[in-house]
Amino acid sequence: MSNEINETDIFSSNSSVLIRGTLLNGKRQDIFITEEGNIGEISESISGELKNEAEFIIDGSKTVASPGFVNTHTHAAMTLLRGYADDMHLQEWLSEKIWPLEAHLCGEDVYWGTKLACIEMIKSGTVAFNDMYFFMDEAAKAVDECGMKAVLSHGFIDFGSEEKRESEIKATEKLFSDVKKMNNQKIRAAVGPHAPYTVAPEGLSWCSEYAKENDSLLHIHLSETETEVKDCVNQHGMKPAKLLDKCGCLSENTVAAHCCWLDDEECALLGKRGVSVSHNPVSNMKLAVNRAMPYQQLIDAGANVTLGTDGCSSNNNLDILEEMKTAAILQKFFWNSDTLLPAHEAIKMTTESGAKALGFGTGKIETGAPADIVLLKTNISCMTPLYNPESNIVYACGSNAVDTVLCSGRVLMYDGNIPGEEEVYQKAAETAFNLVNRKENADN
Amino acid sequence: MSNEINETDIFSSNSSVLIRGTLLNGKRQDIFITEEGNIGEISESISGELKNEAEFIIDGSKTVASPGFVNTHTHAAMTLLRGYADDMHLQEWLSEKIWPLEAHLCGEDVYWGTKLACIEMIKSGTVAFNDMYFFMDEAAKAVDECGMKAVLSHGFIDFGSEEKRESEIKATEKLFSDVKKMNNQKIRAAVGPHAPYTVAPEGLSWCSEYAKENDSLLHIHLSETETEVKDCVNQHGMKPAKLLDKCGCLSENTVAAHCCWLDDEECALLGKRGVSVSHNPVSNMKLAVNRAMPYQQLIDAGANVTLGTDGCSSNNNLDILEEMKTAAILQKFFWNSDTLLPAHEAIKMTTESGAKALGFGTGKIETGAPADIVLLKTNISCMTPLYNPESNIVYACGSNAVDTVLCSGRVLMYDGNIPGEEEVYQKAAETAFNLVNRKENADN
Repeated sequence: MSNEINETDIFSSNSSVLIRGTLLNGKRQDIFITEEGNIGEISESISGELKNEAEFIIDGSKTVASPGFVNTHTHAAMTLLRGYADDMHLQEWLSEKIWPLEAHLCGEDVYWGTKLACIEMIKSGTVAFNDMYFFMDEAAKAVDECGMKAVLSHGFIDFGSEEKRESEIKATEKLFSDVKKMNNQKIRAAVGPHAPYTVAPEGLSWCSEYAKENDSLLHIHLSETETEVKDCVNQHGMKPAKLLDKCGCLSENTVAAHCCWLDDEECALLGKRGVSVSHNPVSNMKLAVNRAMPYQQLIDAGANVTLGTDGCSSNNNLDILEEMKTAAILQKFFWNSDTLLPAHEAIKMTTESGAKALGFGTGKIETGAPADIVLLKTNISCMTPLYNPESNIVYACGSNAVDTVLCSGRVLMYDGNIPGEEEVYQKAAETAFNLVNRKENADN
Repeated sequence: MSNEINETDIFSSNSSVLIRGTLLNGKRQDIFITEEGNIGEISESISGELKNEAEFIIDGSKTVASPGFVNTHTHAAMTLLRGYADDMHLQEWLSEKIWPLEAHLCGEDVYWGTKLACIEMIKSGTVAFNDMYFFMDEAAKAVDECGMKAVLSHGFIDFGSEEKRESEIKATEKLFSDVKKMNNQKIRAAVGPHAPYTVAPEGLSWCSEYAKENDSLLHIHLSETETEVKDCVNQHGMKPAKLLDKCGCLSENTVAAHCCWLDDEECALLGKRGVSVSHNPVSNMKLAVNRAMPYQQLIDAGANVTLGTDGCSSNNNLDILEEMKTAAILQKFFWNSDTLLPAHEAIKMTTESGAKALGFGTGKIETGAPADIVLLKTNISCMTPLYNPESNIVYACGSNAVDTVLCSGRVLMYDGNIPGEEEVYQKAAETAFNLVNRKENADN
């Protein structure tokens, strides 16, 4: 038979695929995916021509289908720093551990760190992410090879220095040019002013202008800690969201990460501007930021609330399933409301709202949409019993439930396997070892 | 060769096993496990007679070894209620959903629910647990078949009624008699007064006396919500810990779950009595209890702080790895301290302290100790890079990293597989379906 699964072939770029009998919105459905990577048909039984046309048939009878997950705030290559330093005071951790090691990063590190990140994200059902880091041409190469969708920004930090600003502008322009050359519709460049406390208003204004000119996203950290909010008020006489607005940085093309310490007025402002917010609960808890993003206030204000893992040095993984659960339980706990952020909304944050934030389709499984689909196993403990698949996905399952992942129709993982993953673990481990060695040699 | 792995045989009761080259406390080690299930030798290279004696050799070269994990607070059979109701107000959730369904539970439900729970716990590296529920003879049967260690208590609830108390006393005595008859050293009966607000002082006193007479554990819920603390003060003129102490319920044989709302004086009392506390952070967050167990105060007072998942209706899984991470990040977040509950202490809670609480050995991998060992994969994303295995276990890994689990030398899981797991998923799903049907038929 032409459409029996050959594990080598199924990963090779776009083929037409028929998923048989997966549980979608409470019903057993067949899903036909075209060679172009879109959903061609969804129905209870696809037969005849379409069935014959399918190059591969995936048995979905022991799976639940979900739209692919979207991770809206990462520093992907920081996988290489996983476990390098933890359980320290934030400032010591940054100044004595993280920054000194990052100072020795090279492009090859970012390439392998991003490859490792992509594999890790695919394993938890992620199809798209929003990344900010350095050597982003290498990150782009890694994402291209892994077949995911990504928005990539160079972390723009000027610390008020004009010279530094000029070099950050060049790095940003280079990234836009590099990504354009790749001509991969799944990868987009964005502007990445790091935060209101690391970029001067002149830098923020340049970033917002450049994003407008290029119709790109603007990715920024906002009000993660109480200290930065107080500092901003002292330095600029206004809270950070207000400062960003003044510099033109708040729009429907903005993704603002963390947002833990926003007050009601700032929530209203973000809602008014149509900003997307990336909630990063695990990182916020690990770094003891002491306040949870005001989820309901942001939703009520009309902001687009999404979900992100942050980087691996403050998480320490990129598991979006874990992040969904942590979001749902942290909101309840912190805001003292047992009904806040129910499972259905956690899934919406991670699919529809995430896709909207990054401009990658609707985040729904529907005819005509790009086939961004995750199949989760049902013959597994966390899906037993199956009263409510959404509850099981959010509250019970880990990434061991993820069986198959398709991104715009390309099969990225099948039956738990991603081609070449063993090599990536080995190379990433070597790269991390060499990075630490370079640092230690330089220190001595 | 006699000691090549045959997957059917390796699970069959106790055989001598040699684990080759696993990473233990930073060094590659061989571990020899005797037929009796104890650790016979640990050294860099075991050869000669012991090697020849080993019936099975497990290649540990791509693994890190950890002592088996201990879950000190569960209602195992509540796996059957996973996802049945979530995201509701606590009182409605209990009175409209959980209790009405539990009213229809039968022994067979508890048997299959506990089987499912055991498989789920083994998958995250758990070797022992502390369970409180109903139909505990059926739970004991399930645990016995799965090969885990457990302390089992009947949830004793009298609501101040003497008649109810008499029937709870009978149920408790029956459990002790049933467990004695099983003659399985891994399974022990305990006394399980549900909570100070569900058991009258007369019931609490009976429980403490019976536990003393039988040298058994006493397993109880303590100060989970602020309301129950206030109610206790109103009704009894003292806080719950004080009330328990008055009824003789606080001793080195006590495991008190939750303990979110203890004040400093109560922490000191628990420390003085040598009580073990079970921290249940996921459940506490999901149910919005609004205060995290005072970890450092309890440690400073000398209490034995351990970790538990609670039941699946408020978690919704039994994944002890997830619980370790949540404990480590919730403590930091709630108590506003980025150094609180570091990875090493999270592991200690879940191994040494847990084993001590339940009286199952030292919770360490050392010569002469029972071979309670988890091998976690290192060729996996969450263990790459491998700067710090303890950090990776706590902050990065999920249960997909767990490769092999031994409990007193018996192999419960090998290479990710547990014998008969598929049948358990199927039977548990059917059982849950029938339970809901019975309830709905009775309602109509």
